[in-house]
Amino acid sequence: MYNQSGLKKIVNTALVNLTYNTESDRLIDPVKYVLSMGGKRLRPVLALMACNLFSDKIDDAVLPVTGLEIFHNFTLIHDDIMDKAQVRRGFPTVHTKWNVNQAILSGDVMAFIANECFLQSPAHLLAKVLRVFNKAAIEVCAGQQLDMDFEKATIVSQDEYIRMIELKTAVLIAASAKIGAICGGADDRNAELLYEFGRNLGLAFQIQDDILDVYGDMKVFGKTSGGDIIAGKKTFLYVRASEAGSLDQRKKLQDLYVSDSFEPEEKVKMVTEIYDLLNIKFISEKVVAEYLRNALGYLEKVNVAHERKEELVRMTDSLSGRDH
Amino acid sequence: MYNQSGLKKIVNTALVNLTYNTESDRLIDPVKYVLSMGGKRLRPVLALMACNLFSDKIDDAVLPVTGLEIFHNFTLIHDDIMDKAQVRRGFPTVHTKWNVNQAILSGDVMAFIANECFLQSPAHLLAKVLRVFNKAAIEVCAGQQLDMDFEKATIVSQDEYIRMIELKTAVLIAASAKIGAICGGADDRNAELLYEFGRNLGLAFQIQDDILDVYGDMKVFGKTSGGDIIAGKKTFLYVRASEAGSLDQRKKLQDLYVSDSFEPEEKVKMVTEIYDLLNIKFISEKVVAEYLRNALGYLEKVNVAHERKEELVRMTDSLSGRDH
Repeated sequence: MYNQSGLKKIVNTALVNLTYNTESDRLIDPVKYVLSMGGKRLRPVLALMACNLFSDKIDDAVLPVTGLEIFHNFTLIHDDIMDKAQVRRGFPTVHTKWNVNQAILSGDVMAFIANECFLQSPAHLLAKVLRVFNKAAIEVCAGQQLDMDFEKATIVSQDEYIRMIELKTAVLIAASAKIGAICGGADDRNAELLYEFGRNLGLAFQIQDDILDVYGDMKVFGKTSGGDIIAGKKTFLYVRASEAGSLDQRKKLQDLYVSDSFEPEEKVKMVTEIYDLLNIKFISEKVVAEYLRNALGYLEKVNVAHERKEELVRMTDSLSGRDH
Repeated sequence: MYNQSGLKKIVNTALVNLTYNTESDRLIDPVKYVLSMGGKRLRPVLALMACNLFSDKIDDAVLPVTGLEIFHNFTLIHDDIMDKAQVRRGFPTVHTKWNVNQAILSGDVMAFIANECFLQSPAHLLAKVLRVFNKAAIEVCAGQQLDMDFEKATIVSQDEYIRMIELKTAVLIAASAKIGAICGGADDRNAELLYEFGRNLGLAFQIQDDILDVYGDMKVFGKTSGGDIIAGKKTFLYVRASEAGSLDQRKKLQDLYVSDSFEPEEKVKMVTEIYDLLNIKFISEKVVAEYLRNALGYLEKVNVAHERKEELVRMTDSLSGRDH
């Protein structure tokens, strides 16, 4: 069995060794740049773990699942344009380092480089893999649309928020787990269980991310604490507080979020105070734990020997402890 | 056998009846909008003609080749952002009617809606169809990159220009013809001949477009005469004149192209005068005719009864007479 860090190395090697059948360096330089920024490689690593659940041989899955990472980075490049984000993983974003037009175009080509990776799937699995990926890709776009819509919305319910992150984040993680399972030879039922495992993991992952943005350790996560608050981004914590708070607290929260009259640090402090009064960190962590429990419940049902699941269980457990 | 206008109707019906598996109208409205603008539907119509060369039954090809039109419109939306184009086919462009972020995202989702169409290919042809499409898609991005690079370049050679339009325009038309042939059951040799037919047709098509921008009838083509000159866009006429002109003419042409000190109409008049002095219209038309002759040469070699080729020959002939 492979472990997480071994799989990450395999994925990174595959990414470095990718050949681009194009004559334009200008087009591909931003692609190489964004892929060299690092990151957890969560999607392809998870896919290879899911593959490894069912098969000792994962070689044939490596190139196809690399497409998941390329697609993910394509969405990051375009999202960063839309969000006017200057920095990603400590590096200037593509549209900052080059320009918006270059970021649009180099992003676009990544969608087809991702396809090229999926086209390396074993012939008898190709249609299945592509259908799962492509459905998720369309959903990710719909999720980004909802995220954009929410920026302008005054009120976003918890259910609406969960649906947004399900589409924007969780379905691709779900698809990753399912595609890995398919490549490993899983039957339809097991592949579907992996999808549900990944979907719940993805929801937990995003809410955990929202928590860490406010309560995480800046040195570990490389983000300014409260970046979402400063950017006025509606997070799980925000929508939950908006639902749980008194009329007074809700109003204060809304005003703080749209106001320009506070220093960023002060804004973070005042929003966090409301969160703390409402016990939002604890409540959110409970929601994360519940999604992780759901994820493990689906994994439990997968019809393979218990020992084969250990690495996925470990990954799931480590998620709940990301702030340690 | 189907004729061109019958096939266009079939394609338009397929486009109108497309179902989008997404819950967000905001995401899909711009997609429907751009697809409702009309246009020749050249790529899917050509694909269905190529299919019809080899098979009387084209039904199974309709949905897959619709993906070609959707992909093409995806590139138009993003190109219009990059070119800051306000109007397309007489309608406000997507980023003008909505905004840049919406145009990026609704464009993106079309890349995957196109995939969804190709995924409707008959199972035994799926891998082939997708490989041909995806190679072309990556090349189209490289062509757009060259086009962007050329904007900043002082000198672009005729060879460089031809390579740019080959990538940006011709390879997708080539891929369309080839994909249609594959769907019709063509063998590899015939499919490749259709690719070369389409590639040459596409080159002729783009150069003809460049000619019509200057010498076409505005009422027929719905474009302001000389739009490329006003926009400072390097066309076949421009690069040819730059190579053929005297040092003096070349300098005058370059200066005119970058200058802001002339009224648009005057600029068009002065550039056209240089073109006329150098006989550029005639020379360019000869190049178009040569590419069309090449195209017909490849079609000639296709191993099916002569009568089956009549509609494709008619289409090719009509292209050379697009200004009548």
